Amino acid sequence: MSHRVIRLLGVGRWEPNASGRLREAALDLYTERGYEQTTVADIAERAGLTARTFFRYFADKREVLFARGDELQNAVRSAAIDAPAGSPPMTVVATVLDVIAELVGRDRDHSRRRQAVIDATPELQERELIKLARLATVLRDGLRERGLSDPEAGLLAETGIAIFRVAFERWIGEPGERELADVMREATARLGSLVAPS
Amino acid sequence: MSHRVIRLLGVGRWEPNASGRLREAALDLYTERGYEQTTVADIAERAGLTARTFFRYFADKREVLFARGDELQNAVRSAAIDAPAGSPPMTVVATVLDVIAELVGRDRDHSRRRQAVIDATPELQERELIKLARLATVLRDGLRERGLSDPEAGLLAETGIAIFRVAFERWIGEPGERELADVMREATARLGSLVAPS
Repeated sequence: MSHRVIRLLGVGRWEPNASGRLREAALDLYTERGYEQTTVADIAERAGLTARTFFRYFADKREVLFARGDELQNAVRSAAIDAPAGSPPMTVVATVLDVIAELVGRDRDHSRRRQAVIDATPELQERELIKLARLATVLRDGLRERGLSDPEAGLLAETGIAIFRVAFERWIGEPGERELADVMREATARLGSLVAPS
Repeated sequence: MSHRVIRLLGVGRWEPNASGRLREAALDLYTERGYEQTTVADIAERAGLTARTFFRYFADKREVLFARGDELQNAVRSAAIDAPAGSPPMTVVATVLDVIAELVGRDRDHSRRRQAVIDATPELQERELIKLARLATVLRDGLRERGLSDPEAGLLAETGIAIFRVAFERWIGEPGERELADVMREATARLGSLVAPS
């Protein structure tokens, strides 16, 4: 049954890509008016939807900006666990970083705008820190499941997320068309030579 | 003029080591009753001081647990900037970690109790994440002042704080009498061999 038929039949309040439309509308409004000055009603109106539909997808106006966090966590967990047996630990981390780049690095303009909103709002900065800390925990658990010791898993997970943070910041800040994955690989190599025992 | 004389003269409400007494009283109460169940009045009473004195030292009951954050930041900044010219970047980070260990590693029992309170309270976990993020920023700025490029300073600062976090967690969790500085050095060496290009 097509979506159009479902809607004509009045089967539900299903709206095509409501979640994506709400996310875009929210980011547009946060950029134009500021995060504090935007309400859920504003976002729903801009997306041509109702506040009720908004709350079927997001707990509040903050969570619209972090809606893809679970997807990212799941992808990181799977990538860490599914990497070929016997891979050196740092190779597993590099594989995980490629998966993060694939998910996070699709739309640099969107990422730039999102980061600008977060940078302007302490509440959102805190939420972002929590998201990154959770991502590190997920990666750490995944590395432990592979049999790494707890300190090794912890060190590599925190370091992997540190590479992501620094590379992401660089990626959204630089001109040109480099892929996030390339910036992450460069950062990984750079860290390797900085940290290597001399 | 001795403190006793000042007090007899009624010159001020100066109390010997009021800040330290309030910190200890707060940690005792958070451990006994829980953080949520403790008020500023309870803390002041336990310390034999007034709530008014409490507020001369701390903004609220949360900040009692983070009162030494500024001291730590200043020490990290100085250590990063004052390390001998020409030191390899990772040597500078190791020096900074020694300074952190000196400040944070004095009293393992206190550290364990403080961490248990934080781990039990999401609000405090967030505050701790913010503190660590600020510490990373301070270290990054210090490394930049030494002439490191921005990505190098960012990578090393985040990695340094990652080593601190993982080593601190290990230190408070392990039996025996190892110094935090030793646990940090071990973690640094371990990370070096994990991250080194193979």
